Amino acid sequence: MLDELKNLKEQLLFQEKFEQGYFKNIVIAGMGGSGIAGSIFSEIYDESPVEVVSDYTIPSYVNSDTLFIAISYSGNTEETISAYREAERRGAQTAAITSGGTIGKICRNSLIIPGGLQPRSALGYMLVPLISSLMHDHSKDLREASKVVENLDMMNDRIKEEAAGLVKAKKLPVIMGFKPFKSVAYRWQTQFNENSKLLAFSASFPELDHNQIMALESSYGKENLAFYYFSGSSGKVRERIKFTIDLTGIEAKQIPVEGSSRIAQIMHLVHYGDYFTYYAALERKIEPRDVTTIEKLKKLLSQF
Amino acid sequence: MLDELKNLKEQLLFQEKFEQGYFKNIVIAGMGGSGIAGSIFSEIYDESPVEVVSDYTIPSYVNSDTLFIAISYSGNTEETISAYREAERRGAQTAAITSGGTIGKICRNSLIIPGGLQPRSALGYMLVPLISSLMHDHSKDLREASKVVENLDMMNDRIKEEAAGLVKAKKLPVIMGFKPFKSVAYRWQTQFNENSKLLAFSASFPELDHNQIMALESSYGKENLAFYYFSGSSGKVRERIKFTIDLTGIEAKQIPVEGSSRIAQIMHLVHYGDYFTYYAALERKIEPRDVTTIEKLKKLLSQF
Repeated sequence: MLDELKNLKEQLLFQEKFEQGYFKNIVIAGMGGSGIAGSIFSEIYDESPVEVVSDYTIPSYVNSDTLFIAISYSGNTEETISAYREAERRGAQTAAITSGGTIGKICRNSLIIPGGLQPRSALGYMLVPLISSLMHDHSKDLREASKVVENLDMMNDRIKEEAAGLVKAKKLPVIMGFKPFKSVAYRWQTQFNENSKLLAFSASFPELDHNQIMALESSYGKENLAFYYFSGSSGKVRERIKFTIDLTGIEAKQIPVEGSSRIAQIMHLVHYGDYFTYYAALERKIEPRDVTTIEKLKKLLSQF
Repeated sequence: MLDELKNLKEQLLFQEKFEQGYFKNIVIAGMGGSGIAGSIFSEIYDESPVEVVSDYTIPSYVNSDTLFIAISYSGNTEETISAYREAERRGAQTAAITSGGTIGKICRNSLIIPGGLQPRSALGYMLVPLISSLMHDHSKDLREASKVVENLDMMNDRIKEEAAGLVKAKKLPVIMGFKPFKSVAYRWQTQFNENSKLLAFSASFPELDHNQIMALESSYGKENLAFYYFSGSSGKVRERIKFTIDLTGIEAKQIPVEGSSRIAQIMHLVHYGDYFTYYAALERKIEPRDVTTIEKLKKLLSQF
């Protein structure tokens, strides 16, 4: 697993693009560790509407004006294959990012990425082509992202301690994000799920100030949760984070962000979570790579 | 509060529409109890891209081809006002659904809805105009929705018992939705937050089968959580729910859905959650209407 984590810095320098023409909107289909690439992309790209679909079906507006991108690391995700076939029937412009599988075969405009990793360890390979193909030149930001990620590879003892602290206290993590780190908070949640086999939850400012704040103050059970938020906020959101913590009296730990570009900051926080959840697994004496239950479920479903 | 809950059946028969012309995409801005109207709408409407913004800023693609709809029950939500002003500057076609306030003043195309309720108790007034203005005739479905909601008003003793059971066991709820009930799961989460002052979490099939399932099996702390899922699934999703429960061994309670149209089903589940969270508050001897901390936060922010 550690080898896989250390592979991210190279993934961020991945140079391949997929072909695309003129479109009016983008629909990205992907599940779990593959879908998150679309969600992160949708937070930094806003030149046209982007909808990320994590389901079997796609919205009925999809047509020849739509750029439909299927992301499936294995290429065999049943929801994504189903969504892809529907997009083809609707005449959408299609592309795929995959290491092969069924999608690699059925989509002529497939960008084939290196295989052999856990999908959640291949985020760079799935995210970078979206940025390179659809946004103006961000190669400088991606080089910076690669650098901050490499720094974390070399120095992460503090994260190991934090993760051990969480597990020893038997607390479940709640990660509070804000734009453009909402998807990063969700990525942490899913990495806790898959790597550490821990339930985890995410929320975002300013939305949580309209509802969750009432529970942060006086819910029972909050002593079983550990709250985390990211540094790097500014303006009203920064004040909201401060006031929310003050008013509710929760203990919330700040996760430091590094990098000057948004992409570097996002990847730094993503990778911080990769290590956090990896070390939480080790502290629990659990194999972080193991996803047996997901495999069992796929087998059961394939008989259906 | 009970009076407010019993008002929903009338709200679903609300006849007003807002004006709109030709557009290519929709952006809906709204926070908390107002924003959820946009989220529910975006699950049943898919004739053009819809993005729900719960933040101060809007995506840069917003222009004269965009129908921008601000939803703020009070009309004074700072994020929504900020988003609205940006949409006007970009030349978007604007509309608003509000009981008045600043937005009622600055938006000429405001649909003024009855005031005096908690925003979260006015969901019908905010959702129905979206359906009536933007979708083909759904008046029959809305009448059915009004009927199933009224049935719940008359008979909800079972919900009271379930809510009491949750609170007595000191468990926090995790609501597992699926399309078109993903936003309903989130609505339950926020109603637990605001009405019951309880932390609550939501997730959705099939996405959760790609990550959370690993934690459902072997996370510590799962004994402190109560899992709920909605009936009414079909096909692969139905199988996924069954297999997920079987494989992980979680105890998950099924919430029954009623109604034949999707809109009636959605409103039945919404209202079931309204009663569930109301009764959970009573069991905790907590005033469900109280949102003092949110008011305190607004005051602090207004000084900033």
